[in-house]
Amino acid sequence: MTAAQLRVALLGAGTVGAEVVRAFTHRSARLAPDGGRRLELVGIAVRDVDGARARGLPADLLTDAPAHLVADPETDVVVELMGGDEPAHTLVAAALAAGKGVVTANKHIVAHHGPELESIARRTEAALRFEAAVGGGIPVLGPLAGELAANEVSEIRGIVNGTTNYILTAMTDEGRGYAEVLAAAQAAGYAEADPSGDVEGHDAVNKLVILVRLGFGVWIEPGDVAISASDGPGAARPGITGISAADLAAAAATGNVIKLVASARRDDDGRVVASVLPTLVPADSPLGRTAGVLNRIEIDATPVGSVAFAGPGAGGAATSSAVLGDLLAIARGLGSTWAGLPPAGRPDRADRPDRSPTPAGELSPAGSADR
Amino acid sequence: MTAAQLRVALLGAGTVGAEVVRAFTHRSARLAPDGGRRLELVGIAVRDVDGARARGLPADLLTDAPAHLVADPETDVVVELMGGDEPAHTLVAAALAAGKGVVTANKHIVAHHGPELESIARRTEAALRFEAAVGGGIPVLGPLAGELAANEVSEIRGIVNGTTNYILTAMTDEGRGYAEVLAAAQAAGYAEADPSGDVEGHDAVNKLVILVRLGFGVWIEPGDVAISASDGPGAARPGITGISAADLAAAAATGNVIKLVASARRDDDGRVVASVLPTLVPADSPLGRTAGVLNRIEIDATPVGSVAFAGPGAGGAATSSAVLGDLLAIARGLGSTWAGLPPAGRPDRADRPDRSPTPAGELSPAGSADR
Repeated sequence: MTAAQLRVALLGAGTVGAEVVRAFTHRSARLAPDGGRRLELVGIAVRDVDGARARGLPADLLTDAPAHLVADPETDVVVELMGGDEPAHTLVAAALAAGKGVVTANKHIVAHHGPELESIARRTEAALRFEAAVGGGIPVLGPLAGELAANEVSEIRGIVNGTTNYILTAMTDEGRGYAEVLAAAQAAGYAEADPSGDVEGHDAVNKLVILVRLGFGVWIEPGDVAISASDGPGAARPGITGISAADLAAAAATGNVIKLVASARRDDDGRVVASVLPTLVPADSPLGRTAGVLNRIEIDATPVGSVAFAGPGAGGAATSSAVLGDLLAIARGLGSTWAGLPPAGRPDRADRPDRSPTPAGELSPAGSADR
Repeated sequence: MTAAQLRVALLGAGTVGAEVVRAFTHRSARLAPDGGRRLELVGIAVRDVDGARARGLPADLLTDAPAHLVADPETDVVVELMGGDEPAHTLVAAALAAGKGVVTANKHIVAHHGPELESIARRTEAALRFEAAVGGGIPVLGPLAGELAANEVSEIRGIVNGTTNYILTAMTDEGRGYAEVLAAAQAAGYAEADPSGDVEGHDAVNKLVILVRLGFGVWIEPGDVAISASDGPGAARPGITGISAADLAAAAATGNVIKLVASARRDDDGRVVASVLPTLVPADSPLGRTAGVLNRIEIDATPVGSVAFAGPGAGGAATSSAVLGDLLAIARGLGSTWAGLPPAGRPDRADRPDRSPTPAGELSPAGSADR
């Protein structure tokens, strides 16, 4: 079977992007789904073309003009791996508006511009996929929207930020203070020079917003996710920035560890309550034993019960797995990550009745529910 | 949007089937995928119609003639939850031959008749889905064939049989012998009157054969999966039937536990080597800590690294989640569980070159590889 090719433009060739390029150059036999279109890499936009060439990226594909690559009629699908807000947000919106598929690992733009991007994608029927935005290479968004689609989700919780988990694990294991371990993590490349996005919880908030979209059917505002608590370990400081060696020692004395746990559930009024907070968890529980840069996401739902997904939550190679999986899904015509689910509602419209059991014979037409 | 309905016939209404029926009667709002066809239950075949009616199953849908239900032109999709070889195998083959979609939780027929069923399904372009056959409600086959599709799988291992894990866990925790714990498990409903399918490893073998199909692209023969070893705990006896309290005590003395581990990998010649054997694993490893009726499946692959899926591997409610997810997938037109992967090869044709890196420009056409 010879199907038309799907021409892929890559925006950004850092850690993840370089691994995506490697897959095209070294494992391309796997990039032709049965019954789908064969993927072909047609362009790579980078900030520094000379530097990228020196790193061994294919010279004939390099450009420093991402907007041209997005607009090029020869581009069918855009893979956005630049990160950050702009220009990534505008480029992704432009690609979707032009009806082009987009695969992104950018949790910030999906969490902060989700309603807008979903609206554009639905209008133009372009596919927007973002499995790589949560849990790196761990399959979790696809299963949540797909294999678990018949479930009523009651709670999602997990460890979704590797940097903070690495820091907390090191503080626990070595009895050292936050500032000291953070400096060591920065030196080792596990934390960025400006670590605030990770250590204050914003990265985990973005991932939780995305999990909530797929599990609860609504886009919540990142700013509505609590990142500091009035009491408990590290109280009144965002993320893990208030956690001390003494907090961890006190936790250990009761058989617990402190983890930065992202969690979301529906309250009694049907509203989604979401937080990313340092949390005491039993040291010998699966979350408590999730060490270093590993991620673990647990989903409680009816009828399935509780299922968990674990693995490397970051890293170029692991994350490229999710990017490539999304590209293959677009090549097979599977649509967006939320395909099959109703259009998202806004939090204030997400009333419980839409999610509660409906007596047979009183079905809502698909797509009409405020989810 | 009003799409045509997808008319579902259910074969078997035991533990899982009753939960599927409950979803149709109590949570039917979730059984209408956005952009897909709404699911409608049109018939339930049971052995004992009066008994099923007494259990509260909808009387107007009951029949004791499964073959008629399969052949009925009013049936679009068949859900086979009878289990066992015949008549399940013939009914599923007939449905597929008639171009009807099939969802099954029957690991035996998929593992033992996989090549035949795949061949029929590909010929008629009918969808055959079987997520529920492995890991109950845990999403694992879908992620393996979908989100992880770009990966080269090197090893799959896991605890995939709840009955044996329950028995081994109880023997470990309580220091009791195999026969005693088995009898207690039978009394509690965790083991069947004839437990051989579970305790000799055949159930786990069937699940491993299915995982191998999706992870390695070949159908292996269940009989080629080793279920007894020449040495090690319980040697020369199949499954866990040779495990004694002394074996478990000896394991504990070295910080290990004994688990029935299903595993498959490629050997140096590219052949798939698969076994289901009592295995020493560190007590504090994730597999070692998988207790009772939980399942855990770990996948090592490039580029993702190692990812794991855990949750309830059996039970009516949990398993119904996978059955319903597969029904929704068919309603969305997503095809078979293996959709997107090349047609399966046979073990002797599964040479490594099909899976190894292919230089760019030397692509095999999709679907031509012997996988």
